[in-house]
Amino acid sequence: MKGGPCLAIDWGTTNRRVHLLDAGGAVLSTERSDRGIRAIAPGGFGAEIAALRERFGPLPVIAAGMVGSTRGMQEVPYVPAPADIAALAAVLAPAAGVEDMWIVPGVSCRTGGHADVMRGEEVQALGAVAAGLAPADALVCQPGTHNKWIELRAGRITGFATAMTGELFALLRDHSILAEMLDGPIEDGPAFRAGVAAAGQGNLLEQLFGVRAAVLLGDLPRTQAAAFLSGLLIGADAGGRAIAGRTVHLLADRQLGGLYAAAIEALGGVSLFIDSRAAFAAGIHCIRGLSHV
Amino acid sequence: MKGGPCLAIDWGTTNRRVHLLDAGGAVLSTERSDRGIRAIAPGGFGAEIAALRERFGPLPVIAAGMVGSTRGMQEVPYVPAPADIAALAAVLAPAAGVEDMWIVPGVSCRTGGHADVMRGEEVQALGAVAAGLAPADALVCQPGTHNKWIELRAGRITGFATAMTGELFALLRDHSILAEMLDGPIEDGPAFRAGVAAAGQGNLLEQLFGVRAAVLLGDLPRTQAAAFLSGLLIGADAGGRAIAGRTVHLLADRQLGGLYAAAIEALGGVSLFIDSRAAFAAGIHCIRGLSHV
Repeated sequence: MKGGPCLAIDWGTTNRRVHLLDAGGAVLSTERSDRGIRAIAPGGFGAEIAALRERFGPLPVIAAGMVGSTRGMQEVPYVPAPADIAALAAVLAPAAGVEDMWIVPGVSCRTGGHADVMRGEEVQALGAVAAGLAPADALVCQPGTHNKWIELRAGRITGFATAMTGELFALLRDHSILAEMLDGPIEDGPAFRAGVAAAGQGNLLEQLFGVRAAVLLGDLPRTQAAAFLSGLLIGADAGGRAIAGRTVHLLADRQLGGLYAAAIEALGGVSLFIDSRAAFAAGIHCIRGLSHV
Repeated sequence: MKGGPCLAIDWGTTNRRVHLLDAGGAVLSTERSDRGIRAIAPGGFGAEIAALRERFGPLPVIAAGMVGSTRGMQEVPYVPAPADIAALAAVLAPAAGVEDMWIVPGVSCRTGGHADVMRGEEVQALGAVAAGLAPADALVCQPGTHNKWIELRAGRITGFATAMTGELFALLRDHSILAEMLDGPIEDGPAFRAGVAAAGQGNLLEQLFGVRAAVLLGDLPRTQAAAFLSGLLIGADAGGRAIAGRTVHLLADRQLGGLYAAAIEALGGVSLFIDSRAAFAAGIHCIRGLSHV
């Protein structure tokens, strides 16, 4: 292991977070930007790293997330679950054409006929355990465009599922027949809780149209339709997971995470927030140490 | 009842079908166009009717569908279910400012806390019974952007549900992360049937993302992703309805109707196609007779 400071990059589809870590893995600074992989032209990744090194110094770079996908800098194969942090470190891929840069693989799983993939979330989840922010046996939830539910057993990712919850909400808000009714606030409250409760009681495709009917018939105030729909989708997402009596470790900001926490509570579970920046930094620091780069 | 020929208009959001009926209710001709209510400027409906009368003659007009909605020509209140064809006829609304034109009300229902509405489908469903194309006790399905499931008892609409199946497929195909994978054919076959079977076995939000994961991992050929997704959505729609052993009367074209028929069969039901044009014409003719317009 070379040691010394490094740049840990969480490089997603639409956003990028660059963390400057000291030799002990502590976060010295973080730069957030919209330089996600969609914003980078093919062949443009080398120049991006050069620009970062202009600003932060000529440091080793370890990147995770969609940067390792077919649409990113270079494709890095998934590690099949069950996977621990050593398994990720073992196949850390050197970036082609950029010196002293490595890309973390994603994780794939097949459970009961269901296939799933992740890129980036594995570093946060396993890093949370490495940093003592989550226990080695835990259910982790990472709300976002594509919400992840990760089962950790003895510090390994044993299975996970991705729900299209956030993307579906955005599709309905931006493009559907419901769009004109969804300009109200999206917050926890009676309408959100009613959505969570309704989700357990029927066919989701039917309940989506039911939002429109309820507004037209005066059963649901138009200003509360967005909160109700959010509750319906998050309730449909969380409700299928036997959460009652369980603790869910949330890697999320307080706003979206707060909605998940409310739904989890309504479903009889308990939620605990994890600092996702600290978890990611711990994950990268641990991978670096295990891989001797 | 004045009798004589009339124009029966099925006036939806994006399409319009104008049927010329003779005094006995037989369809003499049909004009299909994209002059749905979205294509008509506010205040422009009178000119549309005048133009139709230029072409077809100075005939009475009876119109059903979204023309009677808040976005249409004028709002006509819903008739609450249970509703039969006489209930529709009783509140046929004269069109404001256009002589000898009437608008059929829609139907609303509230079943077990679920609110729903329809405009236009009620004429087809009740018309199918009036014409002897469906029995007085029947489960009717009208696939489309917003698929309707209608329960008929003794010739009355006793309850119904609308599923956002078609719209959700279009949203995913046009705007989602799955979009790039959905250019294959949408047809009945092993991939469609696998989607129908999968729908009964998990969380829909998760299964939607699973389509992407299955393609990325090589479990689902990209060319079959659209058919699989179609099966997943139609299976999720039809699967919640205890179809096994029942006959479903389909008011649909052979292409989309064929997919529903395949899903219904896979779920243990039987499907029968109804001629939707004949059903609509019979419904309007019957309403006209009962209303004495």
